[in-house]
Amino acid sequence: MTDQQVVAVYDIESWLPPAQAAGVLAGEQSTGTFVRVPGESDALRERFGATVLDVTGLPGSGNTPLPGAVRPPGAGRRPHRARVRIAFPLHNFGPSVPNLLAAVAGNLFELREMAAVRLVDLELPAAFAGRYPGPAFGTAGTRRLMDAPDNTLIGTIVKPGIGLRLDELRPLVRELAMAGIDFIKDDELNGNPPHAPLPERIKAVNEELDRAADATGRRTMYAFNITDDIGRLEANHDLVRETGGTCVMVCVQAVGLAGVAHLRERATLPIHGHRAMSGALLRSPQIGLGPLVFQKLARLSGVDQLHVGGIAGKFYETDEDVVASVHAMRTPFLGGYEALPVLSSGQWPGIAHRTLELTGTHDLLVLAGGGIHAHPLGPAAGVAAMRAAWRAAAEGESLAEAAAHDRALALAVERFAGIRG
Amino acid sequence: MTDQQVVAVYDIESWLPPAQAAGVLAGEQSTGTFVRVPGESDALRERFGATVLDVTGLPGSGNTPLPGAVRPPGAGRRPHRARVRIAFPLHNFGPSVPNLLAAVAGNLFELREMAAVRLVDLELPAAFAGRYPGPAFGTAGTRRLMDAPDNTLIGTIVKPGIGLRLDELRPLVRELAMAGIDFIKDDELNGNPPHAPLPERIKAVNEELDRAADATGRRTMYAFNITDDIGRLEANHDLVRETGGTCVMVCVQAVGLAGVAHLRERATLPIHGHRAMSGALLRSPQIGLGPLVFQKLARLSGVDQLHVGGIAGKFYETDEDVVASVHAMRTPFLGGYEALPVLSSGQWPGIAHRTLELTGTHDLLVLAGGGIHAHPLGPAAGVAAMRAAWRAAAEGESLAEAAAHDRALALAVERFAGIRG
Repeated sequence: MTDQQVVAVYDIESWLPPAQAAGVLAGEQSTGTFVRVPGESDALRERFGATVLDVTGLPGSGNTPLPGAVRPPGAGRRPHRARVRIAFPLHNFGPSVPNLLAAVAGNLFELREMAAVRLVDLELPAAFAGRYPGPAFGTAGTRRLMDAPDNTLIGTIVKPGIGLRLDELRPLVRELAMAGIDFIKDDELNGNPPHAPLPERIKAVNEELDRAADATGRRTMYAFNITDDIGRLEANHDLVRETGGTCVMVCVQAVGLAGVAHLRERATLPIHGHRAMSGALLRSPQIGLGPLVFQKLARLSGVDQLHVGGIAGKFYETDEDVVASVHAMRTPFLGGYEALPVLSSGQWPGIAHRTLELTGTHDLLVLAGGGIHAHPLGPAAGVAAMRAAWRAAAEGESLAEAAAHDRALALAVERFAGIRG
Repeated sequence: MTDQQVVAVYDIESWLPPAQAAGVLAGEQSTGTFVRVPGESDALRERFGATVLDVTGLPGSGNTPLPGAVRPPGAGRRPHRARVRIAFPLHNFGPSVPNLLAAVAGNLFELREMAAVRLVDLELPAAFAGRYPGPAFGTAGTRRLMDAPDNTLIGTIVKPGIGLRLDELRPLVRELAMAGIDFIKDDELNGNPPHAPLPERIKAVNEELDRAADATGRRTMYAFNITDDIGRLEANHDLVRETGGTCVMVCVQAVGLAGVAHLRERATLPIHGHRAMSGALLRSPQIGLGPLVFQKLARLSGVDQLHVGGIAGKFYETDEDVVASVHAMRTPFLGGYEALPVLSSGQWPGIAHRTLELTGTHDLLVLAGGGIHAHPLGPAAGVAAMRAAWRAAAEGESLAEAAAHDRALALAVERFAGIRG
């Protein structure tokens, strides 16, 4: 890759020979249309055409071909499958994420020649770093604001996710903060509902966190869900900051990558990126984006913390998928864009050892919702149990050994092991 | 549906009994998590829980189940399939599209219980109309600006889509405008590339259109592709307007629905909504959104004109899909939100009769790219051939009869019939 190119990597299936299918994709996404037109000179194609760099055959997936896929008469039952790398000239779009998307992730998903087409990786030139500053805080900045320099970061989601009154939310936040939790977030379902306006939630929560911080000496980071129309994000962010808050959260797909980048330009607090709706783009092996692409684009757009699923989670990903995402999130691209992987979904203390073993890092923000709130002795004990499990994992003590001398942990194991294995 | 509810319709597959699977979805997207938590009182569930309204069995799809779908021991080979309608209390999110998405199209796509899950329709209460004004122009406003009160609207895309110099673009625009074409648009691949900055393109094109309008008495509408970072959309729009332009285009997925709504609040020109990248969300029958949902949300966000594929197009949709989309686009929702369906992809004069017969309307903007530019006598003859074909279709004359007395049409048939059938 030169510094004047973007390289996009696709996994495709097609009944055309893979090299030919890759050529259709490259043509559609640069100078071509269904017929050669007068202005499409050789010089123009040379300068603006996308180029197929390589085509590597892959074993067939056995998945149902996408609707509309063309199978020529006499073709085999199953399409070919291949990984193809295509280079796009940077000067076709410049370092603009929205215009990049129209090229590398645009009409190509609709091509009849494709029985599957998934954008699995994206190599970007340095010009993008000049335009998009990326995460302002990342892992190090998040730890600094939390005053939590080294342990695995333990957090929770307010549960129930929606519907708590402020007079119910206040004592919950108080208990969690007094228990020394590192991080609390609003549920992605709780934005600015008319029954409990965001400004009041911000004010109430920040009061509770300040009071707890006076007692404990550490202020819990709280990610307020400020997801809303683009024009409201800045004011929401400012309200969080002005009342002492240290983090804002947006649903990346709901405000769009462009919305995140817009917020990033105006934000002075870390951005917690929730991935709600990402499954629609990421889950099918036949179409859409691979997680690596989503993560790179979200980091470029400025998220400091990003959800990547959870080990033994309740969502679709395998542990291997989650580990790969954690690894990818911690791998610099464009020389930086360091962001904190957030593990959530069905998390509880019993998963700590497996998570540490599989990921090999403490640079994780692990969120347990029900796994903290539903502890038999209440949320504070839920936090203690999570801490105990992670301490044991870090020190090489087994869960059973740790539970033998930690009552909160023992009760958590008793409560959740049957449900979450 | 009450005026305090949103009803979301899903096609799901699950190895759980469909009613149970629907219940998991409703719980995950409202008050529930994997375990009942202390605050999840009956009163809270009653007020904030999503409700399964009905479950209708559907024949199995035979498609490959989504990754991670749980098949309990002893379950049949194929999952159940059903259409389920779920009511969400409006007060969970209020009339905010981003927060609506987090509820009706959020984490649910990731649930292991789902072997397929697709949001196929959305019924919204009037409150959304209070917040989102929708299209300011729609079909009637577009026709008014074009001075084209009744015929099918004929347009083209600048081709090659990327790479034309301004001294090549100028004569092309001039020829098309002098030929009386109703509409021209930039390719979705041509935003604001460094080799040909948008401001210069806007100025050059508007000069040509003004000059042609002086001669013909009608000004061709040109949709400038202003897709870019959110903070640049307003300035781009204003530049188009200030130099006499009458339309702007954005790639809806690339700027996000929230980005479109943001532009709409600031725009005084019609918004041409390109659907690049929509295939990633819309094409798979197993996940994502149905076209109806995308169209409703794009109209709500403010697009005046929206791409819906093309009859006999080069993309994946069947003619039935495209006809259904045209019909849906012309069906009011929330009492209005009228928008113009745009047909494109592989269009040429030979498709006019079939399109009119299938759609039954002239309220269409039909875009032929190669089908105009690659006409043997050049783009002006390409426009004439498109007009002749649509005139014949409107008057009940066959394509062959019309071609017998229209040389431009005859040449178009000769040129394209073999390629596009």
